[in-house]
Amino acid sequence: MSRPAGRTILASTIAKPYQEEVISAVQKLSFKPTLVGLLANEDPAAKMYANWTSKTCESLGFNYKLVEVNKNDLETSLIKANRDDNVNGIMVYFPVFGDKQDQYLQQLISPEKDVEGLNFLYYHNLYHNVRFLDPPKNQQKSILPCTPLAMVKILEYLGVYNKILPYGNRLYGKKILVVNRSEIVGRPLAALLANDGATVYSVDINNIQQFTRGDDLSEHRHLVVDLKGDEYTVEKLAPQCDVIITGVPSENYKFPVNLVRHGTVVINFSSSKNFDDEIKQRAGLYVPSIGKVTIAILLRNLLRLIDNKKIRAGEVAEDV
Amino acid sequence: MSRPAGRTILASTIAKPYQEEVISAVQKLSFKPTLVGLLANEDPAAKMYANWTSKTCESLGFNYKLVEVNKNDLETSLIKANRDDNVNGIMVYFPVFGDKQDQYLQQLISPEKDVEGLNFLYYHNLYHNVRFLDPPKNQQKSILPCTPLAMVKILEYLGVYNKILPYGNRLYGKKILVVNRSEIVGRPLAALLANDGATVYSVDINNIQQFTRGDDLSEHRHLVVDLKGDEYTVEKLAPQCDVIITGVPSENYKFPVNLVRHGTVVINFSSSKNFDDEIKQRAGLYVPSIGKVTIAILLRNLLRLIDNKKIRAGEVAEDV
Repeated sequence: MSRPAGRTILASTIAKPYQEEVISAVQKLSFKPTLVGLLANEDPAAKMYANWTSKTCESLGFNYKLVEVNKNDLETSLIKANRDDNVNGIMVYFPVFGDKQDQYLQQLISPEKDVEGLNFLYYHNLYHNVRFLDPPKNQQKSILPCTPLAMVKILEYLGVYNKILPYGNRLYGKKILVVNRSEIVGRPLAALLANDGATVYSVDINNIQQFTRGDDLSEHRHLVVDLKGDEYTVEKLAPQCDVIITGVPSENYKFPVNLVRHGTVVINFSSSKNFDDEIKQRAGLYVPSIGKVTIAILLRNLLRLIDNKKIRAGEVAEDV
Repeated sequence: MSRPAGRTILASTIAKPYQEEVISAVQKLSFKPTLVGLLANEDPAAKMYANWTSKTCESLGFNYKLVEVNKNDLETSLIKANRDDNVNGIMVYFPVFGDKQDQYLQQLISPEKDVEGLNFLYYHNLYHNVRFLDPPKNQQKSILPCTPLAMVKILEYLGVYNKILPYGNRLYGKKILVVNRSEIVGRPLAALLANDGATVYSVDINNIQQFTRGDDLSEHRHLVVDLKGDEYTVEKLAPQCDVIITGVPSENYKFPVNLVRHGTVVINFSSSKNFDDEIKQRAGLYVPSIGKVTIAILLRNLLRLIDNKKIRAGEVAEDV
């Protein structure tokens, strides 16, 4: 195999400045923030992930408290954590029930402690480009779901965001393929990138949709169009794209490397490997996983929630 | 076939007093309330259902406005209806996308116009027996999801709620089988009935759960236990039950009539027929469908939302 022309960039490299930002912000606090992880899932992989979260949190200066509960008791434990003044952030290891009851539980996490940014309010703000929770004062920043936000930070690091373009339009002209349209990551990610000026082809098992900024200025809302016709297939669209992002949670799925144009930026956010190693012969920049960036962003969200709480409590001088 | 010992009760009979209540309440208003139905679904059955809703609304004194939109424009139309002061209630004909995006859209319906009671807030209040939206004043009543509430009204009509028992415990001693554990109907229904004192066996494709009132008084929360073991099968539990409720959305599914003890109260809330006709030889009281009660309850919810709005606007004298 010939030497790759492009480079593989590890998440640890990209995460570094965010980890440093977080460590330094925690040191300025008068207390050690506490993140509670609620595990009501018998999957050993979830337990491993929880242990990994724990280690990362502790290493960056946070308390991490793992609460293991029977799934039928999860709601009660969650309410307790919501009410506990010593708990600054809460995350639940989903799936728990694996059905819509998980959405009910997800919404039950207080928005004030929702480090993952999963609350309906935060998604709504993302889709409509709403940056603050308290208009017209605009002091409390809205939280962004952590995986989509991590992806934006990764694309910034990789230079896909063009800093010479005006802020808010720095993906202008870019075509991005996103293989995943989950409500947690794929759809909000497509909207975020479209809001920043990209043309996004969002692929799921049913169809391909195109997300663009659109012109619905009254709602600050991206435009979504179902793409139909022979020219709109992954086979035809992928080679046109500047960036290909995958998040297919299956060991069996592999994105066809032959569809990737030489020099493309390629990012996989699934915990499964969505590309065979030969992708390194094609990709300009290849990021094989993003977990370390996501967790740094999650802790950054936790600090933002603490800031918002201070503002609500009047501990920060208001400049109105 | 011998003459049935029991009776079949039609939804129209049970709906009548609620229809009358609603007609009379509308007449006392200074305006004709408007319900908007958003249809972004190409299923002809959804269109038929919308037309049926329309006729029912008009016949009971309400304006009904059907808005047909492309599904990618549904969010924008929904926001417009949320903001339109002339719109008192909103319902969306789900499924639209058929995935979690539908939950996002469902949560987007303003709680102040959510006639179906689908907002997270209302489910949360149901699960925790919270009756009012504005403690400690307790003037604005919380909305209950309309199908579970319709079921309670049906069980009251059928005499399953025992009025001699204290309010809040009128299902004491009753065993109820509910075949459906959807987040929209089956799970909240099981919780409602457990909160009223029943032992509920909640069946879905994965397992059987038992809902009882439990003793989590601090959270006002019912207790859920997974039932495991040979004695906990539908075959063994169904013949012990006083009430059997089904809601399986499939023409192919039939509940085995031989499991129904003679004299059991039997109710089907699926739009498919979950029982063969021979159920009439077994059931004490049989309600083959409940749609007409549900729509009457939906309009009752709409009037409650109008009342709440008046209270918020200070149009109703406060007795604090």
